[in-house]
Amino acid sequence: MNSEWIKLNVGGIIHHTTRTTLMKDENSMLFRMFSYNDYMTPGRMEDGCYLIDRNGRYFEPILNYLRTGQLTYDTNLSPEGILEEARFFGLDELSYELQKIIDKKEEPKNIDDTTPLT
Amino acid sequence: MNSEWIKLNVGGIIHHTTRTTLMKDENSMLFRMFSYNDYMTPGRMEDGCYLIDRNGRYFEPILNYLRTGQLTYDTNLSPEGILEEARFFGLDELSYELQKIIDKKEEPKNIDDTTPLT
Amino acid sequence: MNSEWIKLNVGGIIHHTTRTTLMKDENSMLFRMFSYNDYMTPGRMEDGCYLIDRNGRYFEPILNYLRTGQLTYDTNLSPEGILEEARFFGLDELSYELQKIIDKKEEPKNIDDTTPLT
Amino acid sequence: MNSEWIKLNVGGIIHHTTRTTLMKDENSMLFRMFSYNDYMTPGRMEDGCYLIDRNGRYFEPILNYLRTGQLTYDTNLSPEGILEEARFFGLDELSYELQKIIDKKEEPKNIDDTTPLT
Amino acid sequence: MNSEWIKLNVGGIIHHTTRTTLMKDENSMLFRMFSYNDYMTPGRMEDGCYLIDRNGRYFEPILNYLRTGQLTYDTNLSPEGILEEARFFGLDELSYELQKIIDKKEEPKNIDDTTPLT
Repeated sequence: MNSEWIKLNVGGIIHHTTRTTLMKDENSMLFRMFSYNDYMTPGRMEDGCYLIDRNGRYFEPILNYLRTGQLTYDTNLSPEGILEEARFFGLDELSYELQKIIDKKEEPKNIDDTTPLT
Repeated sequence: MNSEWIKLNVGGIIHHTTRTTLMKDENSMLFRMFSYNDYMTPGRMEDGCYLIDRNGRYFEPILNYLRTGQLTYDTNLSPEGILEEARFFGLDELSYELQKIIDKKEEPKNIDDTTPLT
Repeated sequence: MNSEWIKLNVGGIIHHTTRTTLMKDENSMLFRMFSYNDYMTPGRMEDGCYLIDRNGRYFEPILNYLRTGQLTYDTNLSPEGILEEARFFGLDELSYELQKIIDKKEEPKNIDDTTPLT
Repeated sequence: MNSEWIKLNVGGIIHHTTRTTLMKDENSMLFRMFSYNDYMTPGRMEDGCYLIDRNGRYFEPILNYLRTGQLTYDTNLSPEGILEEARFFGLDELSYELQKIIDKKEEPKNIDDTTPLT
Repeated sequence: MNSEWIKLNVGGIIHHTTRTTLMKDENSMLFRMFSYNDYMTPGRMEDGCYLIDRNGRYFEPILNYLRTGQLTYDTNLSPEGILEEARFFGLDELSYELQKIIDKKEEPKNIDDTTPLT
Protein backbone atom coordinates (compact mmCIF):
# COMPACT_ATOMS: atom_id res chain seq x y z
CA MET A 1 0.00 0.00 0.00
CA ASN A 2 2.58 2.51 1.15
CA SER A 3 5.51 0.89 -0.62
CA GLU A 4 5.86 4.09 -2.61
CA TRP A 5 9.52 5.15 -2.96
CA ILE A 6 10.66 8.33 -1.27
CA LYS A 7 13.82 10.26 -2.05
CA LEU A 8 15.16 12.31 0.85
CA ASN A 9 17.85 14.96 0.88
CA VAL A 10 18.93 15.10 4.50
CA GLY A 11 21.40 17.98 4.84
CA GLY A 12 22.87 17.19 1.42
CA ILE A 13 23.03 13.38 1.64
CA ILE A 14 20.55 11.42 -0.46
CA HIS A 15 18.62 8.50 1.01
CA HIS A 16 16.13 6.30 -0.82
CA THR A 17 13.48 4.44 1.09
CA THR A 18 9.76 3.70 1.10
CA ARG A 19 6.91 5.55 2.77
CA THR A 20 6.19 2.34 4.73
CA THR A 21 9.65 2.48 6.31
CA LEU A 22 9.34 6.14 7.24
CA MET A 23 5.89 5.56 8.77
CA LYS A 24 6.89 2.48 10.81
CA ASP A 25 6.53 4.17 14.21
CA GLU A 26 3.06 5.69 14.50
CA ASN A 27 4.00 7.91 17.42
CA SER A 28 7.00 9.45 15.71
CA MET A 29 7.40 12.79 14.08
CA LEU A 30 8.60 10.97 10.95
CA PHE A 31 5.18 9.27 10.76
CA ARG A 32 3.52 12.67 10.76
CA MET A 33 6.01 14.10 8.27
CA PHE A 34 5.15 11.40 5.76
CA SER A 35 1.43 10.99 6.43
CA TYR A 36 -0.61 12.32 3.56
CA ASN A 37 -2.75 14.75 5.50
CA ASP A 38 -0.31 16.47 7.73
CA TYR A 39 0.95 20.00 7.54
CA MET A 40 4.35 18.75 8.70
CA THR A 41 5.31 17.31 5.31
CA PRO A 42 8.79 18.63 4.45
CA GLY A 43 9.38 20.88 1.46
CA ARG A 44 10.36 19.33 -1.85
CA MET A 45 12.83 20.04 -4.62
CA GLU A 46 11.76 20.17 -8.27
CA ASP A 47 12.63 16.47 -8.72
CA GLY A 48 10.27 15.49 -5.89
CA CYS A 49 13.05 14.94 -3.37
CA TYR A 50 12.11 15.91 0.21
CA LEU A 51 14.45 18.35 1.95
CA ILE A 52 15.22 17.92 5.65
CA ASP A 53 17.61 20.31 7.40
CA ARG A 54 19.29 17.71 9.59
CA ASN A 55 22.46 15.60 9.58
CA GLY A 56 22.40 13.12 6.70
CA ARG A 57 24.90 10.63 8.03
CA TYR A 58 23.29 10.25 11.44
CA PHE A 59 20.04 9.67 9.59
CA GLU A 60 21.46 6.38 8.29
CA PRO A 61 21.24 4.40 11.58
CA ILE A 62 17.76 5.85 12.00
CA LEU A 63 16.69 4.40 8.67
CA ASN A 64 18.42 1.11 9.59
CA TYR A 65 16.38 1.01 12.75
CA LEU A 66 13.11 1.64 10.94
CA ARG A 67 13.96 -1.00 8.33
CA THR A 68 15.17 -3.78 10.63
CA GLY A 69 14.05 -2.90 14.17
CA GLN A 70 17.70 -3.13 15.23
CA LEU A 71 20.03 -0.35 16.30
CA THR A 72 23.30 -0.83 14.43
CA TYR A 73 25.81 1.86 13.60
CA ASP A 74 29.45 2.08 12.62
CA THR A 75 32.04 2.42 15.35
CA ASN A 76 33.18 5.85 14.17
CA LEU A 77 29.68 7.36 14.43
CA SER A 78 28.94 9.35 17.57
CA PRO A 79 25.96 7.87 19.51
CA GLU A 80 25.29 11.36 20.90
CA GLY A 81 24.86 12.58 17.33
CA ILE A 82 22.41 9.79 16.49
CA LEU A 83 20.47 10.45 19.71
CA GLU A 84 20.06 14.10 18.75
CA GLU A 85 18.42 13.00 15.49
CA ALA A 86 16.35 10.20 17.07
CA ARG A 87 14.89 12.79 19.44
CA PHE A 88 14.22 15.26 16.66
CA PHE A 89 12.33 12.62 14.67
CA GLY A 90 10.41 11.57 17.78
CA LEU A 91 11.61 7.96 17.89
CA ASP A 92 11.24 7.24 21.60
CA GLU A 93 12.36 3.63 21.79
CA LEU A 94 15.45 4.31 19.71
CA SER A 95 16.27 7.37 21.85
CA TYR A 96 15.96 5.22 24.94
CA GLU A 97 18.33 2.57 23.55
CA LEU A 98 20.87 5.22 22.57
CA GLN A 99 20.66 6.91 25.95
CA LYS A 100 21.46 3.59 27.63
CA ILE A 101 24.57 3.16 25.45
CA ILE A 102 25.76 6.69 26.24
CA ASP A 103 25.15 6.31 29.99
CA LYS A 104 27.08 3.04 30.02
CA LYS A 105 30.02 4.61 28.18
CA GLU A 106 30.29 7.47 30.66
CA GLU A 107 29.95 5.32 33.76
CA PRO A 108 33.17 5.49 35.81
CA LYS A 109 35.29 2.36 35.52
CA ASN A 110 35.45 0.35 38.72
CA ILE A 111 38.82 0.70 40.32
CA ASP A 112 40.11 -2.73 41.28
CA ASP A 113 40.02 -3.04 44.98
CA THR A 114 43.47 -4.55 45.30
CA THR A 115 44.60 -5.55 48.71
CA PRO A 116 47.93 -3.93 49.57
CA LEU A 117 51.11 -5.93 49.58
CA THR A 118 52.26 -6.32 53.18
CA MET B 1 25.72 -16.04 -19.85
CA ASN B 2 24.58 -13.98 -16.88
CA SER B 3 27.43 -11.48 -17.02
CA GLU B 4 24.83 -8.79 -17.63
CA TRP B 5 25.52 -5.64 -15.62
CA ILE B 6 23.13 -4.66 -12.88
CA LYS B 7 22.84 -1.24 -11.26
CA LEU B 8 21.48 -1.29 -7.73
CA ASN B 9 20.31 1.58 -5.57
CA VAL B 10 20.49 0.18 -2.05
CA GLY B 11 19.00 2.79 0.28
CA GLY B 12 20.54 5.60 -1.79
CA ILE B 13 23.99 4.13 -2.42
CA ILE B 14 24.74 2.92 -5.94
CA HIS B 15 26.43 -0.43 -6.54
CA HIS B 16 27.35 -1.90 -9.92
CA THR B 17 27.76 -5.61 -10.34
CA THR B 18 26.75 -8.50 -12.61
CA ARG B 19 23.75 -10.80 -12.44
CA THR B 20 26.19 -13.72 -12.05
CA THR B 21 27.53 -12.22 -8.82
CA LEU B 22 24.08 -11.59 -7.39
CA MET B 23 23.00 -15.16 -8.25
CA LYS B 24 26.09 -16.86 -6.80
CA ASP B 25 24.25 -18.56 -3.91
CA GLU B 26 21.31 -20.56 -5.27
CA ASN B 27 19.61 -20.83 -1.91
CA SER B 28 19.66 -17.12 -1.22
CA MET B 29 16.93 -14.56 -1.50
CA LEU B 30 19.26 -12.52 -3.73
CA PHE B 31 19.26 -15.43 -6.19
CA ARG B 32 15.50 -15.29 -6.32
CA MET B 33 15.43 -11.51 -6.56
CA PHE B 34 17.58 -11.61 -9.70
CA SER B 35 16.25 -14.78 -11.34
CA TYR B 36 14.29 -13.94 -14.43
CA ASN B 37 11.04 -15.70 -13.55
CA ASP B 38 10.51 -14.69 -10.00
CA TYR B 39 7.96 -12.32 -8.63
CA MET B 40 10.52 -11.13 -6.07
CA THR B 41 12.40 -8.97 -8.56
CA PRO B 42 12.80 -5.51 -6.96
CA GLY B 43 11.20 -2.43 -8.49
CA ARG B 44 13.20 -0.32 -10.92
CA MET B 45 13.80 3.35 -11.55
CA GLU B 46 13.38 4.87 -15.00
CA ASP B 47 17.09 4.32 -15.76
CA GLY B 48 16.78 0.59 -15.06
CA CYS B 49 18.39 0.80 -11.64
CA TYR B 50 16.94 -1.66 -9.10
CA LEU B 51 15.71 -0.15 -5.83
CA ILE B 52 16.26 -2.03 -2.57
CA ASP B 53 15.11 -0.51 0.73
CA ARG B 54 18.08 -1.69 2.80
CA ASN B 55 21.36 -0.25 4.06
CA GLY B 56 23.71 0.49 1.16
CA ARG B 57 26.98 0.48 3.04
CA TYR B 58 26.42 -2.85 4.74
CA PHE B 59 25.58 -4.21 1.31
CA GLU B 60 29.22 -3.68 0.31
CA PRO B 61 30.73 -6.57 2.33
CA ILE B 62 27.86 -8.72 1.04
CA LEU B 63 28.84 -7.98 -2.54
CA ASN B 64 32.52 -8.60 -1.61
CA TYR B 65 31.54 -11.98 -0.27
CA LEU B 66 29.62 -12.92 -3.40
CA ARG B 67 32.48 -11.75 -5.62
CA THR B 68 35.39 -13.37 -3.78
CA GLY B 69 33.93 -15.95 -1.39
CA GLN B 70 35.71 -14.14 1.46
CA LEU B 71 34.22 -12.10 4.26
CA THR B 72 36.19 -8.87 4.51
CA TYR B 73 34.94 -5.60 5.88
CA ASP B 74 36.39 -2.38 7.21
CA THR B 75 37.14 -2.09 10.90
CA ASN B 76 34.63 0.72 11.43
CA LEU B 77 31.71 -1.31 10.03
CA SER B 78 29.44 -2.97 12.58
CA PRO B 79 29.34 -6.80 12.09
CA GLU B 80 25.86 -6.78 13.63
CA GLY B 81 24.75 -4.45 10.85
CA ILE B 82 26.19 -6.71 8.15
CA LEU B 83 24.58 -9.77 9.76
CA GLU B 84 21.18 -8.08 9.64
CA GLU B 85 21.60 -7.65 5.87
CA ALA B 86 23.10 -11.12 5.29
CA ARG B 87 20.01 -12.59 6.96
CA PHE B 88 17.64 -10.42 4.96
CA PHE B 89 19.26 -11.55 1.70
CA GLY B 90 19.19 -15.18 2.86
CA LEU B 91 22.95 -15.78 2.76
CA ASP B 92 23.24 -18.58 5.32
CA GLU B 93 26.96 -19.27 5.26
CA LEU B 94 27.82 -15.60 5.48
CA SER B 95 25.36 -15.15 8.38
CA TYR B 96 26.99 -18.08 10.14
CA GLU B 97 30.48 -16.58 9.74
CA LEU B 98 29.29 -13.20 11.02
CA GLN B 99 27.52 -14.77 13.99
CA LYS B 100 30.77 -16.50 14.99
CA ILE B 101 32.64 -13.17 14.89
CA ILE B 102 29.98 -11.47 17.03
CA ASP B 103 29.87 -14.33 19.57
CA LYS B 104 33.66 -14.24 19.90
CA LYS B 105 33.65 -10.47 20.46
CA GLU B 106 31.11 -10.69 23.27
CA GLU B 107 32.74 -13.65 25.03
CA PRO B 108 33.98 -12.60 28.48
CA LYS B 109 37.74 -12.16 28.67
CA ASN B 110 39.48 -14.80 30.79
CA ILE B 111 40.72 -13.32 33.99
CA ASP B 112 44.31 -14.35 34.53
CA ASP B 113 44.48 -16.78 37.35
CA THR B 114 47.41 -15.16 39.07
CA THR B 115 48.89 -16.90 42.04
CA PRO B 116 48.98 -14.61 45.06
CA LEU B 117 52.22 -13.10 46.28
CA THR B 118 53.23 -14.89 49.50
CA MET C 1 10.80 33.81 7.29
CA ASN C 2 14.35 32.76 6.56
CA SER C 3 13.56 29.11 5.99
CA GLU C 4 14.82 29.56 2.44
CA TRP C 5 16.96 26.61 1.33
CA ILE C 6 20.64 27.20 0.70
CA LYS C 7 22.96 24.92 -1.26
CA LEU C 8 26.60 25.17 -0.27
CA ASN C 9 29.66 23.76 -2.00
CA VAL C 10 32.27 23.71 0.74
CA GLY C 11 35.56 22.68 -0.87
CA GLY C 12 33.76 20.27 -3.16
CA ILE C 13 31.31 18.73 -0.68
CA ILE C 14 27.64 19.70 -1.04
CA HIS C 15 25.59 20.67 2.01
CA HIS C 16 21.92 21.63 2.01
CA THR C 17 20.52 23.74 4.79
CA THR C 18 18.34 26.79 5.44
CA ARG C 19 19.30 30.44 5.77
CA THR C 20 17.87 30.31 9.32
CA THR C 21 20.39 27.66 10.32
CA LEU C 22 23.32 29.54 8.84
CA MET C 23 22.25 32.78 10.59
CA LYS C 24 21.70 31.18 14.03
CA ASP C 25 24.64 32.95 15.72
CA GLU C 26 24.32 36.71 15.18
CA ASN C 27 27.92 37.40 16.09
CA SER C 28 29.36 34.89 13.65
CA MET C 29 30.94 35.43 10.31
CA LEU C 30 28.44 32.92 8.88
CA PHE C 31 25.64 35.28 9.93
CA ARG C 32 27.26 38.06 7.95
CA MET C 33 27.96 35.80 4.98
CA PHE C 34 24.28 34.96 4.67
CA SER C 35 22.73 38.29 5.64
CA TYR C 36 21.13 39.92 2.65
CA ASN C 37 22.96 43.25 2.81
CA ASP C 38 26.50 42.21 3.41
CA TYR C 39 29.41 42.38 1.03
CA MET C 40 30.71 39.14 2.56
CA THR C 41 28.21 36.94 0.72
CA PRO C 42 30.20 34.14 -0.95
CA GLY C 43 30.33 33.76 -4.72
CA ARG C 44 27.82 31.51 -6.44
CA MET C 45 27.88 28.93 -9.20
CA GLU C 46 25.43 29.06 -12.10
CA ASP C 47 22.99 26.79 -10.26
CA GLY C 48 22.86 29.17 -7.30
CA CYS C 49 25.12 27.06 -5.10
CA TYR C 50 27.39 29.13 -2.81
CA LEU C 51 31.11 28.36 -3.04
CA ILE C 52 33.24 28.38 0.13
CA ASP C 53 36.95 27.56 -0.06
CA ARG C 54 37.11 25.61 3.17
CA ASN C 55 37.06 21.96 4.27
CA GLY C 56 33.68 20.40 3.52
CA ARG C 57 33.80 17.53 5.96
CA TYR C 58 34.75 19.63 8.96
CA PHE C 59 31.86 21.86 8.02
CA GLU C 60 29.48 19.04 8.91
CA PRO C 61 29.85 19.26 12.73
CA ILE C 62 29.55 23.03 12.36
CA LEU C 63 26.19 22.64 10.66
CA ASN C 64 25.19 20.06 13.30
CA TYR C 65 26.00 22.60 15.97
CA LEU C 66 23.95 25.32 14.31
CA ARG C 67 21.03 22.95 13.80
CA THR C 68 20.93 21.36 17.25
CA GLY C 69 23.02 23.52 19.58
CA GLN C 70 25.10 20.43 20.38
CA LEU C 71 28.67 19.65 19.42
CA THR C 72 28.73 16.10 18.08
CA TYR C 73 31.25 14.67 15.66
CA ASP C 74 32.48 11.28 14.57
CA THR C 75 35.41 9.73 16.39
CA ASN C 76 37.63 9.74 13.31
CA LEU C 77 37.27 13.51 12.78
CA SER C 78 40.10 15.68 14.10
CA PRO C 79 38.83 18.24 16.67
CA GLU C 80 41.74 20.50 15.69
CA GLY C 81 40.39 20.50 12.14
CA ILE C 82 36.89 21.43 13.30
CA LEU C 83 38.28 24.18 15.54
CA GLU C 84 40.10 25.71 12.58
CA GLU C 85 36.78 25.98 10.75
CA ALA C 86 34.80 27.14 13.81
CA ARG C 87 37.30 29.99 14.17
CA PHE C 88 37.15 30.87 10.50
CA PHE C 89 33.35 31.09 10.63
CA GLY C 90 33.52 33.16 13.83
CA LEU C 91 31.60 30.74 16.05
CA ASP C 92 33.01 31.66 19.44
CA GLU C 93 31.12 29.32 21.74
CA LEU C 94 31.79 26.34 19.52
CA SER C 95 35.49 27.28 19.32
CA TYR C 96 35.60 27.47 23.08
CA GLU C 97 34.02 24.01 23.47
CA LEU C 98 36.44 22.51 20.97
CA GLN C 99 39.44 24.14 22.64
CA LYS C 100 38.43 22.56 25.94
CA ILE C 101 38.29 19.11 24.32
CA ILE C 102 41.72 19.57 22.74
CA ASP C 103 43.29 20.85 25.98
CA LYS C 104 41.92 17.89 27.89
CA LYS C 105 43.29 15.42 25.32
CA GLU C 106 46.80 16.86 25.53
CA GLU C 107 46.89 17.09 29.31
CA PRO C 108 49.64 14.81 30.66
CA LYS C 109 48.29 11.65 32.25
CA ASN C 110 48.85 11.49 36.00
CA ILE C 111 51.58 9.05 36.81
CA ASP C 112 50.44 6.79 39.61
CA ASP C 113 52.38 7.62 42.69
CA THR C 114 53.07 4.04 43.66
CA THR C 115 54.83 3.42 46.92
CA PRO C 116 57.86 1.19 46.44
CA LEU C 117 57.81 -2.38 47.60
CA THR C 118 60.09 -2.70 50.62
CA MET D 1 52.50 7.93 -24.86
CA ASN D 2 50.00 6.11 -22.66
CA SER D 3 49.03 9.14 -20.59
CA GLU D 4 45.52 8.71 -21.93
CA TRP D 5 42.90 9.18 -19.18
CA ILE D 6 40.83 6.19 -18.13
CA LYS D 7 37.57 6.31 -16.19
CA LEU D 8 36.85 3.19 -14.17
CA ASN D 9 33.65 2.15 -12.43
CA VAL D 10 34.82 -0.40 -9.88
CA GLY D 11 31.72 -1.89 -8.26
CA GLY D 12 29.99 1.51 -8.36
CA ILE D 13 32.87 3.76 -7.26
CA ILE D 14 34.44 5.97 -9.91
CA HIS D 15 38.23 6.25 -10.25
CA HIS D 16 40.10 8.40 -12.75
CA THR D 17 43.62 7.51 -13.74
CA THR D 18 45.85 7.09 -16.79
CA ARG D 19 46.56 4.03 -18.89
CA THR D 20 50.25 4.39 -17.90
CA THR D 21 49.35 3.93 -14.23
CA LEU D 22 47.18 0.88 -14.89
CA MET D 23 49.93 -0.70 -17.04
CA LYS D 24 52.75 -0.08 -14.55
CA ASP D 25 53.32 -3.76 -13.69
CA GLU D 26 53.87 -5.72 -16.90
CA ASN D 27 53.20 -9.08 -15.26
CA SER D 28 49.86 -8.05 -13.79
CA MET D 29 46.39 -8.83 -14.95
CA LEU D 30 45.70 -5.07 -14.92
CA PHE D 31 48.41 -4.66 -17.57
CA ARG D 32 46.62 -7.15 -19.75
CA MET D 33 43.22 -5.61 -19.06
CA PHE D 34 44.42 -2.25 -20.37
CA SER D 35 46.73 -3.38 -23.18
CA TYR D 36 45.24 -2.54 -26.54
CA ASN D 37 45.31 -6.00 -28.08
CA ASP D 38 44.02 -8.16 -25.32
CA TYR D 39 40.70 -9.89 -25.12
CA MET D 40 40.68 -9.21 -21.36
CA THR D 41 39.69 -5.55 -21.76
CA PRO D 42 36.72 -4.93 -19.44
CA GLY D 43 33.31 -3.96 -20.81
CA ARG D 44 32.44 -0.28 -21.12
CA MET D 45 29.46 1.90 -20.39
CA GLU D 46 28.07 4.29 -23.00
CA ASP D 47 30.23 7.13 -21.66
CA GLY D 48 33.41 5.08 -22.18
CA CYS D 49 33.78 4.21 -18.50
CA TYR D 50 35.21 0.71 -17.89
CA LEU D 51 33.16 -1.55 -15.64
CA ILE D 52 34.94 -3.87 -13.19
CA ASP D 53 32.92 -6.12 -10.87
CA ARG D 54 35.20 -5.75 -7.85
CA ASN D 55 35.31 -3.69 -4.66
CA GLY D 56 35.82 -0.02 -5.46
CA ARG D 57 37.19 1.13 -2.14
CA TYR D 58 39.85 -1.56 -1.88
CA PHE D 59 40.86 -0.57 -5.39
CA GLU D 60 42.04 2.78 -4.02
CA PRO D 61 45.21 1.50 -2.27
CA ILE D 62 45.90 -0.53 -5.40
CA LEU D 63 45.85 2.62 -7.51
CA ASN D 64 47.99 4.38 -4.87
CA TYR D 65 50.52 1.60 -5.15
CA LEU D 66 50.65 1.81 -8.93
CA ARG D 67 50.97 5.60 -8.79
CA THR D 68 53.62 5.89 -6.09
CA GLY D 69 55.20 2.47 -5.63
CA GLN D 70 54.22 2.64 -1.95
CA LEU D 71 51.61 0.67 -0.09
CA THR D 72 49.58 3.12 1.98
CA TYR D 73 46.03 2.65 3.16
CA ASP D 74 43.74 4.07 5.79
CA THR D 75 43.64 2.44 9.19
CA ASN D 76 39.97 1.46 8.87
CA LEU D 77 40.55 -0.49 5.63
CA SER D 78 40.91 -4.25 5.98
CA PRO D 79 44.32 -5.48 4.63
CA GLU D 80 42.69 -8.85 3.89
CA GLY D 81 40.24 -7.04 1.62
CA ILE D 82 43.03 -5.24 -0.24
CA LEU D 83 44.97 -8.51 -0.60
CA GLU D 84 41.96 -10.16 -2.19
CA GLU D 85 41.94 -7.41 -4.85
CA ALA D 86 45.74 -7.34 -5.28
CA ARG D 87 45.61 -11.07 -6.04
CA PHE D 88 42.70 -10.69 -8.45
CA PHE D 89 44.58 -8.01 -10.40
CA GLY D 90 47.75 -10.15 -10.39
CA LEU D 91 49.95 -7.68 -8.49
CA ASP D 92 52.47 -10.09 -6.97
CA GLU D 93 54.74 -7.70 -5.08
CA LEU D 94 51.83 -5.86 -3.54
CA SER D 95 50.20 -9.16 -2.53
CA TYR D 96 53.46 -10.21 -0.92
CA GLU D 97 53.69 -6.97 1.08
CA LEU D 98 50.09 -7.29 2.23
CA GLN D 99 50.56 -10.93 3.22
CA LYS D 100 53.49 -9.92 5.42
CA ILE D 101 51.35 -7.31 7.19
CA ILE D 102 48.55 -9.82 7.78
CA ASP D 103 50.94 -12.52 9.06
CA LYS D 104 52.50 -10.06 11.48
CA LYS D 105 49.09 -8.98 12.79
CA GLU D 106 48.01 -12.54 13.50
CA GLU D 107 51.29 -13.62 15.10
CA PRO D 108 50.69 -14.49 18.76
CA LYS D 109 51.98 -11.84 21.13
CA ASN D 110 55.02 -12.97 23.11
CA ILE D 111 54.07 -13.63 26.67
CA ASP D 112 56.58 -12.01 28.93
CA ASP D 113 58.69 -14.68 30.45
CA THR D 114 58.58 -13.32 33.95
CA THR D 115 60.58 -15.10 36.56
CA PRO D 116 58.38 -15.98 39.50
CA LEU D 117 58.61 -14.03 42.72
CA THR D 118 60.18 -16.30 45.35
CA MET E 1 43.28 38.74 -8.12
CA ASN E 2 43.68 34.97 -8.19
CA SER E 3 40.45 34.21 -6.37
CA GLU E 4 39.32 32.40 -9.51
CA TRP E 5 37.60 29.09 -8.70
CA ILE E 6 39.29 25.88 -9.74
CA LYS E 7 37.63 22.46 -10.00
CA LEU E 8 40.00 19.54 -9.55
CA ASN E 9 39.41 15.86 -10.23
CA VAL E 10 42.08 14.15 -8.15
CA GLY E 11 41.94 10.44 -8.98
CA GLY E 12 38.14 10.59 -9.23
CA ILE E 13 37.38 12.78 -6.20
CA ILE E 14 36.23 16.34 -6.88
CA HIS E 15 37.70 19.27 -4.96
CA HIS E 16 36.74 22.93 -5.37
CA THR E 17 39.16 25.65 -4.38
CA THR E 18 40.66 28.89 -5.63
CA ARG E 19 43.82 29.49 -7.62
CA THR E 20 45.10 31.58 -4.68
CA THR E 21 44.93 28.56 -2.39
CA LEU E 22 46.71 26.29 -4.86
CA MET E 23 49.47 28.90 -5.40
CA LYS E 24 50.05 29.59 -1.68
CA ASP E 25 53.55 28.05 -1.57
CA GLU E 26 55.71 29.63 -4.27
CA ASN E 27 58.30 26.89 -4.15
CA SER E 28 55.84 24.07 -4.62
CA MET E 29 55.02 22.06 -7.67
CA LEU E 30 51.36 23.01 -7.15
CA PHE E 31 52.35 26.65 -7.61
CA ARG E 32 53.87 25.79 -10.94
CA MET E 33 50.94 23.59 -11.96
CA PHE E 34 48.53 26.51 -11.50
CA SER E 35 50.70 29.39 -12.70
CA TYR E 36 49.44 30.72 -15.99
CA ASN E 37 52.65 30.39 -17.99
CA ASP E 38 53.86 26.98 -17.04
CA TYR E 39 53.93 23.88 -19.18
CA MET E 40 53.13 21.84 -16.04
CA THR E 41 49.44 22.81 -16.03
CA PRO E 42 47.43 19.56 -15.75
CA GLY E 43 45.11 18.40 -18.52
CA ARG E 44 41.46 19.39 -18.37
CA MET E 45 38.13 17.69 -18.97
CA GLU E 46 35.49 19.23 -21.22
CA ASP E 47 33.86 21.00 -18.27
CA GLY E 48 37.15 22.73 -17.39
CA CYS E 49 37.93 20.44 -14.47
CA TYR E 50 41.65 19.73 -14.02
CA LEU E 51 42.66 16.06 -13.92
CA ILE E 52 45.40 14.92 -11.55
CA ASP E 53 46.40 11.25 -11.39
CA ARG E 54 46.93 11.13 -7.62
CA ASN E 55 45.01 10.04 -4.55
CA GLY E 56 41.99 12.29 -4.02
CA ARG E 57 41.40 11.66 -0.34
CA TYR E 58 44.97 12.33 0.73
CA PHE E 59 44.72 15.55 -1.25
CA GLU E 60 42.20 16.81 1.29
CA PRO E 61 44.66 17.48 4.16
CA ILE E 62 46.95 19.08 1.59
CA LEU E 63 44.21 21.54 0.64
CA ASN E 64 43.46 22.08 4.35
CA TYR E 65 47.09 22.96 4.89
CA LEU E 66 47.14 25.43 2.02
CA ARG E 67 43.90 27.02 3.21
CA THR E 68 44.70 27.32 6.90
CA GLY E 69 48.44 26.83 7.34
CA GLN E 70 47.67 23.98 9.75
CA LEU E 71 48.17 20.27 9.28
CA THR E 72 44.97 18.54 10.38
CA TYR E 73 43.75 15.18 9.20
CA ASP E 74 41.31 12.52 10.34
CA THR E 75 42.57 9.75 12.58
CA ASN E 76 41.83 7.02 10.04
CA LEU E 77 43.98 8.66 7.34
CA SER E 78 47.49 7.26 6.91
CA PRO E 79 50.16 10.00 7.46
CA GLU E 80 52.48 8.02 5.15
CA GLY E 81 49.89 8.37 2.42
CA ILE E 82 49.62 12.14 2.93
CA LEU E 83 53.42 12.46 2.97
CA GLU E 84 53.63 10.71 -0.39
CA GLU E 85 51.29 13.35 -1.84
CA ALA E 86 52.96 16.30 -0.03
CA ARG E 87 56.25 15.24 -1.61
CA PHE E 88 54.72 14.83 -5.04
CA PHE E 89 53.26 18.35 -4.89
CA GLY E 90 56.58 19.73 -3.62
CA LEU E 91 55.28 21.05 -0.29
CA ASP E 92 58.48 20.95 1.76
CA GLU E 93 57.29 22.30 5.09
CA LEU E 94 54.27 20.04 5.12
CA SER E 95 56.44 17.03 4.21
CA TYR E 96 58.76 17.90 7.06
CA GLU E 97 55.87 18.09 9.56
CA LEU E 98 54.48 14.76 8.37
CA GLN E 99 57.90 13.09 8.53
CA LYS E 100 58.22 14.19 12.17
CA ILE E 101 54.84 12.61 13.00
CA ILE E 102 55.79 9.35 11.29
CA ASP E 103 59.21 9.20 13.00
CA LYS E 104 57.61 9.75 16.38
CA LYS E 105 55.07 6.99 15.78
CA GLU E 106 57.75 4.44 14.90
CA GLU E 107 60.07 5.36 17.74
CA PRO E 108 60.47 2.37 20.09
CA LYS E 109 58.59 2.78 23.34
CA ASN E 110 60.84 3.19 26.36
CA ILE E 111 60.90 0.05 28.41
CA ASP E 112 60.40 0.90 32.05
CA ASP E 113 63.61 0.35 33.85
CA THR E 114 62.05 -1.37 36.82
CA THR E 115 64.30 -2.31 39.68
CA PRO E 116 63.98 -6.00 40.48
CA LEU E 117 62.15 -7.12 43.54
CA THR E 118 64.67 -8.41 46.08
